[in-house]
Amino acid sequence: MSQDSTERIVAGVRSWISTAPHGARLPSNRALMAKYGASPVTVQKAMQRLIAQGIVESRPGVGTFVRAVRPPSPVDYGWQTAALGSPQSRLTALSSTQRAVAPDAIALHSGYPARELLPERLVRAAIARAGRSDAAIVRSPVAGHPELQSWFANELAAFVPAGVAPPTARDALVVAGSQSGLSSIFRALVGHGEPLVIESPTYWGAILAAAQAGVVLVPVPTGPEGPDPDDVDRALARTGARAFYAQPSFANPTGAQWSREVGAAVLEVVRRRGAFLIEDDWAHDLAIDADPRPLAALDDDGHVIYLRSLTKSVSPALRVAAVIARGPARERILTDRAAESMYVSGLLQAAALDVVTQPGWRSHLRGVREQLRARRDLLVRSIQEHAPAAHLEIAPVGGLNLWLRLPDGADAESLARACESRGLIVAPGTEWFPAEAAGPYVRLNFSGENPDRFPDAARILGSLL
Amino acid sequence: MSQDSTERIVAGVRSWISTAPHGARLPSNRALMAKYGASPVTVQKAMQRLIAQGIVESRPGVGTFVRAVRPPSPVDYGWQTAALGSPQSRLTALSSTQRAVAPDAIALHSGYPARELLPERLVRAAIARAGRSDAAIVRSPVAGHPELQSWFANELAAFVPAGVAPPTARDALVVAGSQSGLSSIFRALVGHGEPLVIESPTYWGAILAAAQAGVVLVPVPTGPEGPDPDDVDRALARTGARAFYAQPSFANPTGAQWSREVGAAVLEVVRRRGAFLIEDDWAHDLAIDADPRPLAALDDDGHVIYLRSLTKSVSPALRVAAVIARGPARERILTDRAAESMYVSGLLQAAALDVVTQPGWRSHLRGVREQLRARRDLLVRSIQEHAPAAHLEIAPVGGLNLWLRLPDGADAESLARACESRGLIVAPGTEWFPAEAAGPYVRLNFSGENPDRFPDAARILGSLL
Repeated sequence: MSQDSTERIVAGVRSWISTAPHGARLPSNRALMAKYGASPVTVQKAMQRLIAQGIVESRPGVGTFVRAVRPPSPVDYGWQTAALGSPQSRLTALSSTQRAVAPDAIALHSGYPARELLPERLVRAAIARAGRSDAAIVRSPVAGHPELQSWFANELAAFVPAGVAPPTARDALVVAGSQSGLSSIFRALVGHGEPLVIESPTYWGAILAAAQAGVVLVPVPTGPEGPDPDDVDRALARTGARAFYAQPSFANPTGAQWSREVGAAVLEVVRRRGAFLIEDDWAHDLAIDADPRPLAALDDDGHVIYLRSLTKSVSPALRVAAVIARGPARERILTDRAAESMYVSGLLQAAALDVVTQPGWRSHLRGVREQLRARRDLLVRSIQEHAPAAHLEIAPVGGLNLWLRLPDGADAESLARACESRGLIVAPGTEWFPAEAAGPYVRLNFSGENPDRFPDAARILGSLL
Repeated sequence: MSQDSTERIVAGVRSWISTAPHGARLPSNRALMAKYGASPVTVQKAMQRLIAQGIVESRPGVGTFVRAVRPPSPVDYGWQTAALGSPQSRLTALSSTQRAVAPDAIALHSGYPARELLPERLVRAAIARAGRSDAAIVRSPVAGHPELQSWFANELAAFVPAGVAPPTARDALVVAGSQSGLSSIFRALVGHGEPLVIESPTYWGAILAAAQAGVVLVPVPTGPEGPDPDDVDRALARTGARAFYAQPSFANPTGAQWSREVGAAVLEVVRRRGAFLIEDDWAHDLAIDADPRPLAALDDDGHVIYLRSLTKSVSPALRVAAVIARGPARERILTDRAAESMYVSGLLQAAALDVVTQPGWRSHLRGVREQLRARRDLLVRSIQEHAPAAHLEIAPVGGLNLWLRLPDGADAESLARACESRGLIVAPGTEWFPAEAAGPYVRLNFSGENPDRFPDAARILGSLL
C-alpha cells in the first residue's frame, strides 16, 4: 500500500512537472498528503525518489523545486552549420582594441579616452535634466531631434567660407554613433558587391562596416600630408568606384592631417569623377597642434558626406553622431537608418545636446587639448628614450594615438603577445590595413588611464625590440 | 580720394572675407578707419557697397557679418543620380504608422501606446539613478550589460518546462530595439539574395528590415490559430529557405495567438527542415486575454531565435531589446551587431534594467492589461455599433491593434485619405503584406491618446463605408 502510494505520488508529480516551468515550486508535503491521502512518510519517500531521479531539488528551509534537466550530453548545434552556410563576409566580432584586460596592465590598446578626459559633471547633469524632460518618454523623429540636427549643421557651417552654401538642419541626420553611420553610408551609397576606395592604413571599424555591407575595398596609401590625389583618381577610374572613405583630420591610426592642397585636390578629383568623399571627422574634438578642417565645409553640391560623432568626446554612454549629406544621398541614407533602427533614443540626443550647448563644454575641450598634448609628448619622449627602434613616421597633430613602425623583420602580433606577458597591452597594426599590412606597426593610445606609466610601457617595448 | 579709399576698403574686406567663415563678424568701423586711414563716411560707404553686393549683412546694434552667399540657382544634385544608381532594394523611410499628424486629429495609426500606458515614474527614477552610476560614463560590452543579459535569459527561462535546458545569460544579446535585432538576424542568418519564409500579414518593420538585408520574402498566410504548419513546411521545402519569421503571441497586426498545437507543429517542421524559427515576441508585455507563450522556451537545440523588446512597454526613449540565440547563430548575430553599431549605450541598458526589476513594474503591467482590455472592448463595441461594415475577423487576445477587413471593393488607401480629411487617422493595411494585400484592411491602434473619441472614430469610419 505504502509502495503503491509512493508510486502514485511520483507519477502524479512527474505528470504535473511535465507542464510546469523550470524552477517552479512543488506543492508542499502537507498539500500532497491531503491530495493523495498519504502519510508524511510516504510523501517524504516519493520526494526522495524524485530527487534521486534528478527531476526536483530540495532547498532546505525553502521548498522543493522543479529542476532543469540538462540534456545528458552537450548540445550539438551541428545542424546550424548547414543552415548558416559560409558567412557572406568574414567579420570578427571583437577588435583587439575592445579587449578587456587585467586591471593592473598598462593598457595602450583601447580606442577610447580615459574617464578623466570626459566632461563627467556636464554629462551627469545633462542626463538628469533629460530624464526629467519629455525626451525620457517620447519617440524621436527618424532623422533626429530637430535642435540637435540644427546644432550639428551649425557647427559645420562655422567652417563654411563665403560663397559656399552652408548645410541646413535638415541635411544633418542623427545616428546612434559613427559605426552606425558608416554602416548606413556604405550600404546606402556603395552597396553589396560594389567598390569603395579607402585610405590605408585606416580605422578598423570602417573596414569592418565595409565588410558587413559587402563592399569591395580598394586601398590607396596615405601619409603625413594625406593620400596622393593621383592615386585616388586612378583608383576611382580603374574600379569605377563612386566613393572614397577618408579621415582628413587627425586620421586613426596616424594622427596625420591632410594638407590644404591635398584636400583641395582630392575634392577636385571626386567632383570630376562624379564621386562621393565620405569624410569621417572622428577626432573633431580631439585636436592638438592644429584645428580640424572639414572638407565638407568647402562643398555645397553634395559630394562630401560628413560624419561626426560625440561618443569619444562627450561620453561612450551617449552614442550620438551625425551624418551630414545633401541631395538624394541624404534620402538614401535616411531610408537605411529607418530600416536598420527606426530612430535614435531621444534621451541620448537630449543629453548630448545639453552637454555641447553648456558654457562649460568649450572650456572642457580646451582642457582636453592641453591634456592630450602633454600625454602625447610624454609618450613620444618615452618611446624615443627607451624604445628608439620603434619609429614614429608621422608626428600626430591630433587624435588619441601614436602609430609606430617596428624594425624590419619584427612581427607586430608576436610583439603584442610578448608585451602582454610583461603587462603591457598594445594593438598590433594589422587591423588598420584593408589588405596586407604595409609593414610591422603597433598603435599606442596615449589617452588611456595612468599616463605616468608611459615610461614603463616604453621600457617594456624597448626591451622586446 | 574718397572713391579710391572706398574701393580699397571694399577690396580689402572682400579679400579678408574669402578666407573667413560664414557668419564671421567684420572688424568694427573704428578698426577699419584706423587700418585704412579713412573717414567714418568712407568706411560707411564701403560697408553699404558690400551690403549691396550681398556679401555682408548688418545687424543693427550688433555688428556687420559675413553673409552666406547662396548659389544664384538651386543646387543641382543630378550627378548623384549616376553615382547612386538604382537602389539595391526599394525601401520607404517612413511608414504610415510613423507620420506626425494634426494635434486635434483622432490618431489610431501609430504603433506605440499612449504615454499614460507607460511606467513614467519608474522610467524617470531609473534614468536619474543610471545617470549617477558608472553607466553614464563607461562603455558597454558588445553583447550587453551582463546583468541585463541575465534578466532577459531568466525571463524566458521561467517559461521553460522541465527536461528542456533554459537559456543562459550568455545566450541573450542586448540590441538597441527590436528593429536592430531584426536587421541583424536577417543579415546574419539569412543573407543577401536568400529566401525567408514569413507570415502574411505581418509586422511592416520586419518586411522593411528584410528588404534592407536584401532577403527574398516567401509569404505564408496566417490566421486566428497561426499559419498552417503544412504551408510552412512546403514553403521551406520549395524554396530551400532556412528560416521562418513569425509572431506567435499577439501578432501585429491581428492580435492573434497561435494555438499550442500549431506552435508545436511549426517547431517540429523547422526541426525536421534544419531551419530557424525567428520568434518576435514583440507584445510580451501587452497581453490581454491570454499570457504570452514563447516557443523559444520549448527549444534547447538552437532552432528558435527569440526577440523581445522593452521599447513599447518601458519607454520609446529606452531602446533596448534582446536576441536570445544559441550555438553558431549567436556568434553570427553578435558579429553583425558589432560591425553595425559596436555596442548599445550602457545608460539605456542600466535604466531599462532598473525599471523591470522594480516591484512597481509587475503592478504596472497588471494595470496596463486592464487598460488595454477596456480600450480594446470600447473600440470593438464602437465599430460594431457605428461601422458594422468593417469586419473584425480575429478578436485580438493581446497587442495594441484591431485589424479590420473592409467590404469587398473598398480601397484601404482611399479610405484612409477620406478618414484623414474628416480628422481620423488610420493605417491602411497594405504595409503589413509582404506581397499584394489579400484584401482591403485597415489597422486601428486602440492604445493611443483619448480613447473617449473611439465612438467618434467609428462614426467617421461607418459614414465613409
